[in-house]
Amino acid sequence: MKYLRVGPAGDERPIVESGGRFYDLSGVTDDITGAFLAAGGAATVDGLPEIDITGKRRGAPIARPGVILCIGQNYAAHAAESGAAPPPVPIMFYKAPNTIVGPDDDVLIPRGSKRTDWEVELGVVIGRTARYLDSPADAAAHIAGYVLSNDVSERDFQLDQSGGQWSKGKSCETFNPLGPWLVTPDEVPGALRLRSWVNSAPRQDSSTADMIFGVDQLIWHLSQFTVLEPGDLINTGTPQGVALSGRFPYLAEGDVVEVEIDGLGRQRSPLRSAA
Amino acid sequence: MKYLRVGPAGDERPIVESGGRFYDLSGVTDDITGAFLAAGGAATVDGLPEIDITGKRRGAPIARPGVILCIGQNYAAHAAESGAAPPPVPIMFYKAPNTIVGPDDDVLIPRGSKRTDWEVELGVVIGRTARYLDSPADAAAHIAGYVLSNDVSERDFQLDQSGGQWSKGKSCETFNPLGPWLVTPDEVPGALRLRSWVNSAPRQDSSTADMIFGVDQLIWHLSQFTVLEPGDLINTGTPQGVALSGRFPYLAEGDVVEVEIDGLGRQRSPLRSAA
Repeated sequence: MKYLRVGPAGDERPIVESGGRFYDLSGVTDDITGAFLAAGGAATVDGLPEIDITGKRRGAPIARPGVILCIGQNYAAHAAESGAAPPPVPIMFYKAPNTIVGPDDDVLIPRGSKRTDWEVELGVVIGRTARYLDSPADAAAHIAGYVLSNDVSERDFQLDQSGGQWSKGKSCETFNPLGPWLVTPDEVPGALRLRSWVNSAPRQDSSTADMIFGVDQLIWHLSQFTVLEPGDLINTGTPQGVALSGRFPYLAEGDVVEVEIDGLGRQRSPLRSAA
Repeated sequence: MKYLRVGPAGDERPIVESGGRFYDLSGVTDDITGAFLAAGGAATVDGLPEIDITGKRRGAPIARPGVILCIGQNYAAHAAESGAAPPPVPIMFYKAPNTIVGPDDDVLIPRGSKRTDWEVELGVVIGRTARYLDSPADAAAHIAGYVLSNDVSERDFQLDQSGGQWSKGKSCETFNPLGPWLVTPDEVPGALRLRSWVNSAPRQDSSTADMIFGVDQLIWHLSQFTVLEPGDLINTGTPQGVALSGRFPYLAEGDVVEVEIDGLGRQRSPLRSAA
């Protein structure tokens, strides 16, 4: 199954896709919330009304999460292009949840920005409270699904303007295009190819198989330090091929960033300057 | 005015205090939410039923915020005891909002912790969306009130186990005792004395006048990097006198941490090991 939300920003309607058809969930749940996911989501589409979503805006596929947890330098080649060694333990930081926008929405270059960058990432949405899990093998039961995420970053804000703490460069408005779909684990194969483009020119092209710490390892590890709740989003890190590498220019007004993960859909984010 | 929430954890009732009397707000609002504060809060207590809160548990005085923003090393003497120079710009990081507990609740020492520490801080609650404020002079209109906050920290998790990103040591369950009151700005004088004790022995004793970046400066600055929303909490940094200084032992099961800020009340947090 795939969950999605369509309609005007802030007034999206919850939808479920199954077998290529779309069904309206608004009679079952107000939104794709943590509580809805924790209760098992849509167990069946039987009895749900079909809905035509043609031409409708695609919103982020989940309601605003309690937290967005991000993992830093989780691909060895990206750590290297950032000037760092692969980390011995997962690097964890937070991104403000009000950064989430839909997969086709504008991304705003912040005032004063000179180094706005893209980061295609595998997002994981928590489906069940995870606290002190015994082992990585326990993680799978706590996953509601997977989602395509762009962890947009302003490198001056991240690296030069906050004494080494990265969140200031991660939490500007519109800095987390998400979706189009939340895909349940049964529909997601093992390793996934993830790619990005700027103005149709390729940038990142890697596989989640290259993650230093895999999804199960991350969820187990994070659960030793904080309580993960249903609906929470984990951005699991980005591979090599971002502007920070020095190989590509940073983003400018009028650019279009596209990101894609096999099976999780594709985003198209036009860049605009924050007014 | 002072807002507070009393009752069992997760089922607190919103209350307002005025002139030494307590009034039940539950006919006016479900909770002390950002929306309630943004709409002006309780403009008057006329017509509100009085309520006896004697013997009732005191919860945190606000509903769960969208984010908890924390400022690092915002007192010069604390930066020095942490081995750092005073920062040239505010250091910003996030703490998970599900860490908030009431002012008399237990604080849980995380599994595997050897260095659990206290941090008394002035908390500021946002009352109106703040985005790209023109100047620090605009900040005051965006403040709903002030609150006593303990930014409990695990120093190994913060400093040694996340590649330099601090949030892993800030986001353990129960790590943000908050309250007892949210005090509106009209009832808060300028500089405030803030203190902490462990087992009745003094630890921190300073004044918010010693903050490197003041509240107005912080709100203006943060609004250049993220959108602050009603109900969000800013922990504005802690003064010298924490265990990280090497002058005091870290916390152990059975200890009692107390923190106080003049006019904002006092907390008493028994330490217990996480089960």
